[in-house]
This record gives sequence, structure tokens and C-alpha cells, in this order.
Amino acid sequence: MIVAIIRSGGIMLAGSEKKTVGEFLLDRLMEEGITEIFGIPGDYNFSLLDTIERYDGIRFINGRNELNAGYSADGYARVKGMAALITTFGVGEMSACNAVAGAYSENVPIIHIVGSPKSAEQKGKKLLHHTLMDGNYDVFRKVYEQISGYTAIVTPENAEMEIPRAIRIARETKKPVYIMVAIDLVPKQIISHKLPEPGPEKTNEHALKAALRHIQEMLGNSRQTAALVDMAVLRHNLSESVQALVEQYHIPAASLMQGKSGFDETHPQYIGMYGGAFGSDEVRTIIEEADCIIAAGLLQSDMNLSKYTAKLDPLKMIIIQPDSVQVGQAQYMNIKAEDLLKELRSIEYRQEELFTVSFPYEELQGEPGEPIAASSYYPRFQKMLREDDIVVVETGTFTYGMSQVRLPHGADYIGQGGWQSIGYAAPAAFGASMAAPDRRVVLFTGDGSLQLTFQEISSMLENGCKPIIFVLNNKGYTIEKILNVQTDEQKYNQIPVWQYTKLPDLFNVEAFTAEVRTNSDLETAIMKAGEECAERLCLIELLVEDPMDAPEYLNRLRSFLEEQKQQAEK
Amino acid sequence: MIVAIIRSGGIMLAGSEKKTVGEFLLDRLMEEGITEIFGIPGDYNFSLLDTIERYDGIRFINGRNELNAGYSADGYARVKGMAALITTFGVGEMSACNAVAGAYSENVPIIHIVGSPKSAEQKGKKLLHHTLMDGNYDVFRKVYEQISGYTAIVTPENAEMEIPRAIRIARETKKPVYIMVAIDLVPKQIISHKLPEPGPEKTNEHALKAALRHIQEMLGNSRQTAALVDMAVLRHNLSESVQALVEQYHIPAASLMQGKSGFDETHPQYIGMYGGAFGSDEVRTIIEEADCIIAAGLLQSDMNLSKYTAKLDPLKMIIIQPDSVQVGQAQYMNIKAEDLLKELRSIEYRQEELFTVSFPYEELQGEPGEPIAASSYYPRFQKMLREDDIVVVETGTFTYGMSQVRLPHGADYIGQGGWQSIGYAAPAAFGASMAAPDRRVVLFTGDGSLQLTFQEISSMLENGCKPIIFVLNNKGYTIEKILNVQTDEQKYNQIPVWQYTKLPDLFNVEAFTAEVRTNSDLETAIMKAGEECAERLCLIELLVEDPMDAPEYLNRLRSFLEEQKQQAEK
Repeated sequence: MIVAIIRSGGIMLAGSEKKTVGEFLLDRLMEEGITEIFGIPGDYNFSLLDTIERYDGIRFINGRNELNAGYSADGYARVKGMAALITTFGVGEMSACNAVAGAYSENVPIIHIVGSPKSAEQKGKKLLHHTLMDGNYDVFRKVYEQISGYTAIVTPENAEMEIPRAIRIARETKKPVYIMVAIDLVPKQIISHKLPEPGPEKTNEHALKAALRHIQEMLGNSRQTAALVDMAVLRHNLSESVQALVEQYHIPAASLMQGKSGFDETHPQYIGMYGGAFGSDEVRTIIEEADCIIAAGLLQSDMNLSKYTAKLDPLKMIIIQPDSVQVGQAQYMNIKAEDLLKELRSIEYRQEELFTVSFPYEELQGEPGEPIAASSYYPRFQKMLREDDIVVVETGTFTYGMSQVRLPHGADYIGQGGWQSIGYAAPAAFGASMAAPDRRVVLFTGDGSLQLTFQEISSMLENGCKPIIFVLNNKGYTIEKILNVQTDEQKYNQIPVWQYTKLPDLFNVEAFTAEVRTNSDLETAIMKAGEECAERLCLIELLVEDPMDAPEYLNRLRSFLEEQKQQAEK
Repeated sequence: MIVAIIRSGGIMLAGSEKKTVGEFLLDRLMEEGITEIFGIPGDYNFSLLDTIERYDGIRFINGRNELNAGYSADGYARVKGMAALITTFGVGEMSACNAVAGAYSENVPIIHIVGSPKSAEQKGKKLLHHTLMDGNYDVFRKVYEQISGYTAIVTPENAEMEIPRAIRIARETKKPVYIMVAIDLVPKQIISHKLPEPGPEKTNEHALKAALRHIQEMLGNSRQTAALVDMAVLRHNLSESVQALVEQYHIPAASLMQGKSGFDETHPQYIGMYGGAFGSDEVRTIIEEADCIIAAGLLQSDMNLSKYTAKLDPLKMIIIQPDSVQVGQAQYMNIKAEDLLKELRSIEYRQEELFTVSFPYEELQGEPGEPIAASSYYPRFQKMLREDDIVVVETGTFTYGMSQVRLPHGADYIGQGGWQSIGYAAPAAFGASMAAPDRRVVLFTGDGSLQLTFQEISSMLENGCKPIIFVLNNKGYTIEKILNVQTDEQKYNQIPVWQYTKLPDLFNVEAFTAEVRTNSDLETAIMKAGEECAERLCLIELLVEDPMDAPEYLNRLRSFLEEQKQQAEK
């Protein structure tokens, strides 16, 4: 593996070392740790895929469609730090818009590579297939300009500048970027026009000192301080630094919805998820009554702030972002979070007492013969999870229940807390499985969501992945029924009732399946799956009796929406 | 059903007649003949869907995901003239980009309606779910600006202008349009700000006269004239007028790939598909040796022009477009095709002899016990098709073979000749079935394509549709293998092998299924399906032995690509 060439900074490469555009691109991706690229073949990306087939160290992983491949890349990037996706011009890339926009919203770096028609045909404005039939070859890049951190049209002349730039922007901003390259240019040798890419931005020491003084003052006046852990902690790998600070200050730490697994949930200082009016009352009291809140990586989204029932007084907050910090009303810019977290440890602050809190799903509930329900299956999920599991959770009622489940040490939690595109989780679980073949992946999805993208279970089977998949069959879009308080029994929230355990038959591969109706069914299925998952994929269908079955968090949210409606009608 | 209100042109509506934005929108859609709207529910489109549930005459048809729902809308519009699609903000609409861009490329009018968050929350730049988390609520409309004929953000104040305008543009240009409306504004009464929409543009009589003189002169010098029928004939309903002209002039008529079924293929003057170097040599000779070609609705795409092997001399061409005509090198603008076609009948021109041509799939080939292959199954498909069938054909090897099959009288042919997005056909067949419940729909799809979107077979079953579905199982993306002459045995063109006849089990609904390996299997399956399709959906899996099995058209295309490659390497 030759990765040193462009890092050496030479202006011209020796002829024998010259790479093609395709090889140069793959070299750069491999430097980022990418060993699998997701996508779908199409006749404009043949030269890219042919390059991969001849390339040592990167495999192409065929998805079942482009949206799914995009989601898989997203799941992969959340585990390995970055992912790549290859689609074809027009039809392929347009199918991946949702996955890429989702990666933008959720700060997941995906290098999206699009193979386009021959450059001469583009210049000639030919009316080729997969175009809008108007000779415009820049239109799809313009679409992606709206939902990407950077877009580039790569040629042999600019490859050495544009490819490293696009990848650097993805790495630094955690946004997806878009690279288009014509099919005939992929096998062309690059022409060196190298300009040094700027190194990572450094912390402004003056701003850092000022921020530290301000924080020291705020902490000096605080009797009770608490930490909140959110999304950017996950994306910018700040978990260890945050945990070290929390330990040194001896303060309680809660996570937010979109930051789940950013703090070790078995840690004695972890108090649970802060969920405003809908989550644990104990956590709510600790957070909202604190004099000072250190909020690492906070995103003030409706999900994180529980429909804005969260009461976070800005004057009490120290909000640490990847490149800045806000202390009360003061913004300090150009401060790297790592540097700030390190310097914060020089402040002497230590709280005496720790809080004792309870967690909602610690104790098993429900008799063995009773039908499963949210109150009974969440504790059993919590019990079955193992260290280092990757837990992938679909948008739906599971989002809310699983957020309250206490994760084992080392577990990663993957879900779209902000973008919330249903159908995301199954392909993302496939991506996570490919990123970490030695870890167990446990997918929690619902019938409504799974129907959008379930063909990726075939990709899992095809690639030997062995996740445990729980499918909650509540006969419809239950989450939507709960959220719509304006009408009842909406027909549009009904879906066809499938026999999910028949999936392996269709896909023609052996798998472990189980249908679960009672708590004892669930315990048996969990036990068997715990053994079977070493050998094969496990699919457990949860047939709940009550189509409105939901965790406590959602029941509270529903009551809140009903109250809002009543007030609006007054 | 009240449809006269805005047509009456009043400036202010009486209070009692005032409609909400949602009702006004549905009234306008119903005027266009839309009785079903496809889509997926989401919490930002609840008020739209609730309006439909209370509305008399329009049903909401739940798709399995937004891309599929978009394709279904496309199929529906090709049968009924226009379709509507409802998605939710961000996640929903971004999943439908490919379907809408495809409708743009193929000139299919879809009214795409997006439900967005409450207006106050948009104005407050709240970081709501389904956003990019940057407070930008115009970003997805900007995406759609690239791939739509018009975009509008509708409010009670502008609804009476923007909704009719968007629909008019869709009707006239046959392009998809985009209408976004905030969830809280849908139930608000419209505020009248009506300006009269311009009526349809009229033909410029001077241009028409000049064009007629020019055409008369050209025809006067032509001993052999031929007609070509292409896409715009289908979209602008010009078939009857074209046929009348062809009959009067007594000239041969060929169709192009993207215009198939625009001319009655049982008509004695129909000579087949013109496919450049790959299609019928007889048709090629007639077309290329004609002194004059009347090309109705011609789109000079790579598909129609058979990789530009078609030799159409511009100086011999009369190219009739919906709003213009090109005679030789002269462009005459602002001429409605209907007006021109009518006036052309005043020119005295009549050819004496008709050509006798053969059609490739008239005779059954292959012994009963022999394995099925392209040469044997296409004649059997041609034989099984009935009058008024809707034939939906997926992009893949079927595109090329089915284009050569002679359709019965009254049959419609649906396929994406230009956009060519694999996965389109199954959802489009669902849309066509919903648009014409009394007609038989026959879907020809391949294993590679079907895997992208096959959940729409569940929607067909759920809605009582009874198409006959042929799934060509050639174990991979055979079309891609044929098109890539650079490498052999590409791993990326392999796909998982599913058991397609198990689909009804998964979907938990009875259906007729058959696995076909030999010609006699095929004949039996076709006979049974012919009876069964009155009662239930029929799915016939065609297991071909040769993974490179392809129709003659494709074999010729492959040879052409191989020659091109050899020449490039010289």
C-alpha cells in the first residue's frame, strides 16, 4: 500500500509512480481507514468499479439500492469514522439524496463519488440516458451543493487538489462531500498541480485563555454542576476527554438523545438520559437545578430538547462545541474542544456528593405468560445487551424506549436522532456490521420502517453478517398515530401486515427466526439468539397486542401534545 | 364536488364557499382527473392527509417508501395524464428525488406536494427534526428547483395563484412541479388574491403558414416519405392526429424506443421500431432511404438514436414538437402540434405502395422441452398480450427485447427510455394498475431491478391489483455485464439470488406463482396466468440458463461496443 506520495509534498511525481485518477482517489480513501465502499453499479461508474476490483485493500459492497447503500455508508462511518459511496450519474445519485442529506444533518462524513458520462459527450451536450434530456450536466451537482459540505468535479488536472480537499473538509466538518468524475477520466494518469492543503486549524490561545477565565469564574460560583453529553462528542471522538473531566470534577453526567453512548452508561457518575418533561424526573431535577451545566457537543434540536420542554438556562451553560465554546452569553471562537477539555482539567473544581438515581428499565417486569408490552420488553433488551455491542435503533417508538435503556460498557448506539428518516436503521446496521465484523450488531426496528428498506437484510446475509434483528410488529406507523393528536384511526397510518420471519426464505439463506408474543417467548428467543448469533443472522418478530404500545417517554409526549391541542382550541 | 369556483373568475369568494388551502388544492387536483394521491405519511404532512381522509373523491394511496411512491405516481400519470405525490419535509421529499427527476427527464407531470413544519417554527429557525439542523427551511425547495418545472411555497394568501399556476405549468410542459405547504396552513381558509392564469398559448398563424409552405415544398420533392413516432406523441396525446396523417399520406410509420405504443402496432402501415444499427434492418432501410421523414415528437437521445448509429439526415426531416416544428434546418416556433397536424392534412400527398416488412417475434421458436431463451420467450410474450393491456417494462435486457415485440391494438407501453432508473417498473406498474383498474397490467422486470423496489408488489396485493409479473432471473445485472466491454466477470454485477416466488408468502397474501425453465413451462404458466389474473396477482419467474441471455438488439449493441473498444485501442 503506497500512501506516502502526496504527503511527501513533491510538485511532480516520477513517471513510474504516477497514479490514475481512480487509484489516487482510492489511495486517499484508504488513508482515512476506508476498506469498503458501498454503492450500486451503473454504466457511468464502471471505470471506478473496475479500478476497485483491481485495487488491493478496498472492496466494493453492493447494496440493494442507492438509498440503502447511502444509509449503509452512514452506519459504516459512525463506526469507522468515514465512509465512501459510489453511485452512477443521475438515477443513482438522485436515489441517494435522502441518505446524504441525513449524513449532513447528523454530521457523518461520507465521500460520495459519482461516475458521470464521457467528458466529450458532456461537452457536446448529448442527450444521454440518465440525464434530464436538456444537455445540462451540472444539474445534479447543484442538487448536491445544497446537501453537501463540498462538491467537486474531478479531472486529471485537478485531482491532486480537489480529492484531498474534499476529503479534508469531510474529515474536519464531518459533513458529506461530493466528487464527480467522468468515466473516461478515471483511468487517466493524474497531472500534478499540487498545492499544499492547509493543516487543521489551531486553537486561538487568547480566546482559550479568556474562555478559561470565564469558566473558572462560573464554576467558582457553582455549588452543583452537571455535564450533558451530546452528538458532537460522538462525532469528534471526545468521549474520553469528557469522561476524564467529569471524573476530575466529580459531577453527574447525563446524555441527550442524540448523544447516547457518548458517555459510558455503566459509569458510576452517569445518571441517565435528560429528556425534559418526558424523560426521567430524577435526571430532570438534577440537570435543571444545577447552577452550572457543562454541555459537550450540544445540539439544541427539538428531539434533544424534548419538544422544547427542556429548561436549560443559557446563563448557566458552558456549551463546548468542536471549534468554539459558549460561556453564558459569551461566544469564544476558534477553540478546539480537545484543547479546551484538556485545559479545563487545570481548573480546581470538585463536587463532594454524587446523586443516587434509578434507571427505568433495571428491573424485569411482566409475568412470563403475559403478552409482551413496552414495560416488559425494554428491561429484557437492557439485560440481553453485551459489552461492545453496536446497537442500531430505528426512528419510531423504539427511538424513545431504547434511549432509556442503559447500555453496557463499550457499546455504541446508532440512530438518527435529528434527521429521523424511517428505513435508515436496517441498512445502517448492515454498514455497521461491515465496519466492525468482530462486534455484535443488534438492530431494533419496526414493521413500518423495515418495509421501506428491508432488502438490506439480504445484503447482510450475502456478506455473512450476523446481527440480531428485533422487528416490532405493531401493525402500522404507531409513532405517527401517537404524534397525530388531531384525528383518530388514520387510515394512512395502516400498512400491510407481512410475515417477517419468512424473509430468510425469500432471500434463500438460513437464519434463526422467532415469533414472540409473550414475555417467556421473548426470553427464550433472546437466549437462543444469544447462541445462534455466533453462526447466523437472527430475526425476532415481536407481535404486540396493543397497536398503540409505547414506552413511558412517548406516553408523556402524547399527553403533552394533547394538552397543547386543548390550549390551542381554547 | 365543487369545481367551478376558480374557473368562474370571481375576485372574492363568498364566505360560506371559502375553502381551506388543503381543500382548494384537492379541488384543483380533481379537476385534472386525479382520484388517487400516492405518498407516505410523516408528521409534517398530517394535515394534508387528514384533509384527504375527509375529502370526497380523492384517496391517499400509501406506498412502501417515497421513491416507490414517486415511481407509482409516474406510472399513474402516464395512464391518466397527471398524478400527485405527497411526501414529508426533508426525509420524505429527499427520498423521492430520483422519481421526480425521472419524471422531468421523461416529461411526466407529477404534482409533488410537501408538508413542512409549522410556519412559526420555520420563521424562528428552530432546529426541528427532518432539517439539516441549520435553520434553513428553503434548502429542499432549492434542490427541487433543479429537477422541477416550477416550485412554490404555498400560503393562504397566495394559494389561489400559486396552486393553479403550478398545475397549469405541469399540464402544459408535462414536467413535475413542487408545492410546499406548512402543516398549520393547510387547514387555513384561503384569502382571495386571484389573478387570471393565462390560457393555453395559441399557435402563431404566420409561423404556421410559413412552415406549411416549407413542408409542402419538401413533400413535393419526396418520392418516399416515412413517419417516426416518438415520446411527445404519447405525452401530448397526438397519436390519433398522427395516425390520421399517416393514413392520408399512406406512408409507413415506425416508432422509436421512447415513443413505443404512440402508433398502433397492428396498423397495416406500421413497420416496427427504428433502432439504427441494432434494430430491424428492414425498418432501417425504409427510414434511412426515405427522402423525407416526418418525425413526430422526436427526442434525439442516445437510446432513441441507438448509440447514435441512427442515420437521420437533418435536411430530410420534419420534426414536429408540441410547440414548434423544424423543417430541414429551419425552426418555426409557437406552433401547436395539433394545429400543425390538422393543417398538414390539407396538403395533397399520397404514396402509392406500402412496404411489406417482417417483425422479429411473430413466429414461435424453440422446442417445448428446451430451456427458455430470449429467442423463445419474446415471441411467446407477443402472443400472450391482449388488446388494451398496459405493458410496463423495466430497464434492462427487457427494454431491448420488448421494444421489438409487436403490441396489440389499444395497448399502452410504459418504460423509462431516457431516464432508465432501474427499479422503476414495479412501482410504476402499481401506479398504472391504480390508474386503470379495469385494464390488465403486464409487468416485465428483471431480478436486479426488482430487488431495488419490490416492496411495491405488497402495495399491489394490498390494493387488490392483479397484474401479471414476469421476473427474468438471470442472476445479476446482465444489462451491465453486456454494456461493460472493458472487463469480464465483474463481481459488482452479481446480486443475491432470491426465491421470487416466495414473495407472496412474505406479503401474506395469496397469489399465483410459477417457476419457468422450459418453453413448455412458459406456455403453461402463461395459459394459467391468463385465467388466474382475473382473480389474483400472478408472478412468473423465468429462470434462464445463460446469465448473458439477451435479445438480438442487445447482441448487436454489444458487438458495436466491442468494435468501438478495439478501434480506441488501435
